[in-house]
Amino acid sequence: MTQAFIDVLAGQRQAVPPIWMMRQAGRYLPEYRELRAKAGGFLDLCFTPDYAVEVTLQPIRRFNFDAAIIFSDILVIPYALGRSVRFEAGEGPRLDPLDTPEKIATLAAKADFTKLEPVFEALRRVRAELDSRIALIGFCGAPWTVATYMVAGQGTPDQAPARMMAYRHPDAFAKIIDILVENSIHYLVGQLRAGANALQIFDTWAGVLPPREFLRWSVEPTRRIVEGVRKAVPDAKIIGFPRGAAGLLPDYVATTGVNAVSIDWTAEPAMIRERVQSKVAVQGNLDPLALIAGGAALDRAVDDVLANYGKGRLIFNLGHGIQPETPIAHVEQMVRRVRDYKG
Amino acid sequence: MTQAFIDVLAGQRQAVPPIWMMRQAGRYLPEYRELRAKAGGFLDLCFTPDYAVEVTLQPIRRFNFDAAIIFSDILVIPYALGRSVRFEAGEGPRLDPLDTPEKIATLAAKADFTKLEPVFEALRRVRAELDSRIALIGFCGAPWTVATYMVAGQGTPDQAPARMMAYRHPDAFAKIIDILVENSIHYLVGQLRAGANALQIFDTWAGVLPPREFLRWSVEPTRRIVEGVRKAVPDAKIIGFPRGAAGLLPDYVATTGVNAVSIDWTAEPAMIRERVQSKVAVQGNLDPLALIAGGAALDRAVDDVLANYGKGRLIFNLGHGIQPETPIAHVEQMVRRVRDYKG
Repeated sequence: MTQAFIDVLAGQRQAVPPIWMMRQAGRYLPEYRELRAKAGGFLDLCFTPDYAVEVTLQPIRRFNFDAAIIFSDILVIPYALGRSVRFEAGEGPRLDPLDTPEKIATLAAKADFTKLEPVFEALRRVRAELDSRIALIGFCGAPWTVATYMVAGQGTPDQAPARMMAYRHPDAFAKIIDILVENSIHYLVGQLRAGANALQIFDTWAGVLPPREFLRWSVEPTRRIVEGVRKAVPDAKIIGFPRGAAGLLPDYVATTGVNAVSIDWTAEPAMIRERVQSKVAVQGNLDPLALIAGGAALDRAVDDVLANYGKGRLIFNLGHGIQPETPIAHVEQMVRRVRDYKG
Repeated sequence: MTQAFIDVLAGQRQAVPPIWMMRQAGRYLPEYRELRAKAGGFLDLCFTPDYAVEVTLQPIRRFNFDAAIIFSDILVIPYALGRSVRFEAGEGPRLDPLDTPEKIATLAAKADFTKLEPVFEALRRVRAELDSRIALIGFCGAPWTVATYMVAGQGTPDQAPARMMAYRHPDAFAKIIDILVENSIHYLVGQLRAGANALQIFDTWAGVLPPREFLRWSVEPTRRIVEGVRKAVPDAKIIGFPRGAAGLLPDYVATTGVNAVSIDWTAEPAMIRERVQSKVAVQGNLDPLALIAGGAALDRAVDDVLANYGKGRLIFNLGHGIQPETPIAHVEQMVRRVRDYKG
């Protein structure tokens, strides 16, 4: 079994970069919206293997991407830790906030992984159904990003509640992080054993932290997760996505030991080539709005990604998740253009 | 008249860095809230010299900052261009959106500067009242940032409407930018002639753009403004604040010709020192949340800024505007610590 996606992570540049999209199983697909309407709540979709398998495979059938990513959510770990997690239509996630050191002291240390058995089951079934040349990606949220939701109880413009907790009560905040590190290791190893060929750690909110806090709350916990996963699965392939880390990306790469980083669309190409892509593979970084815009603007934006990073190890992706209003024809246009690349 | 603030911009590092705060005339001050309650709307506050002068001077009286910034708003240019601009309590600005090329075609080319005469009058009066050692800063919004509000009609999480307009209708979008460039030059020169000692160009939304768009919509218009202002006032001192520009800051500095850049709290110190502070002065970059947190976290954050940038040309400031819930005692703590710095 050879997978172009895994080959890039393992060190071999591909002439035509492998391609997939963050949030590729999502609302821009009519077949997803149809299933979602039947499934009930968002967590029912994640935790019913019949649904999760189908939704994971939908974008592969349409676009023949080089990787599938298991349909799930970064908040399944707090859910397995016994926290209340709800997804209300059009509102994003809602959790019971851990907004005082006293509440944090009550957080369970160990997740109930039987609650996540449906995710492992879905991984096994997707891996069995998927063409062997297509990689299957498992994932979790980075502790910092998951903690921002656990503290605030929801997403906020710059996750100020968690940043404030980390400034005012660093020991209490460290307790959340430590619990997330340990349980994320267990969860990621379980995903590899269930059939995932690679892992991605999403740190969506890394970019709101000053350097000292970034190193402590984003980089160091991620390093511990990578180390812990590799203790169980020595050749585990891991992609980090510290969104917005910008100039701190080289530090993130040097310290965490990831095989690749996903970069957002504002990255500075010369720095990324010299200080990041020289060491690990790069995944990214089309502006999701260019994909909505389509036409000549989309072609130019695709060409910029290929020109900036195509001479090195590249996995073509967006700089963030695809948005619901994206026309499917534009995704097709992007895939054609990437696969026509004469690198 | 010697001003430490201007000396830093002109090339001379100061042993104790001059200090002021973005949004220092604002809601964290009880004397501001009191006047605001009397003044009626936000624009009434900006356009009534008695009020604008008083509000501009309030933080100077309390903290003896090294610079005052005229109390105004970046949306006074669209207002003078005849656009409807409203500030509703707790909601941020509302404009009539320029959301089609057809609407953009109707935009006036020239602002009515008699509408901005109260700003010039306030500058003259502040300059007359201010201690000669304290600098007075005039400002405008960068064309990109002002245009994002003009297109969307309001602030949005990542200013997608303007980004989409720029992708789909670059010629129409360029028309807004060109009009803003010309009128910003005129407005900034007017502020210098009314008594401003330096200028700041706020590009709050620079950080949402990919490199190609950043160069076209943020850097190039700012370069034209700097050039245009210096044609009238050759030694004009200008600070740029392309918030979130991160790895693209060196390009911004090299191209625009600004004397200093304001940096946000996520900047990577080594890169900033080597590629930015080696060429221009740096202003920043305390996390406004550290100022709310206070205590040891605030001391450590202040020390980090001084350690990172204090050996070069530094104007101490926040990485973004001060937030309304900031305790005044914490501002005093910060000012003391900066002025005790033994650089």
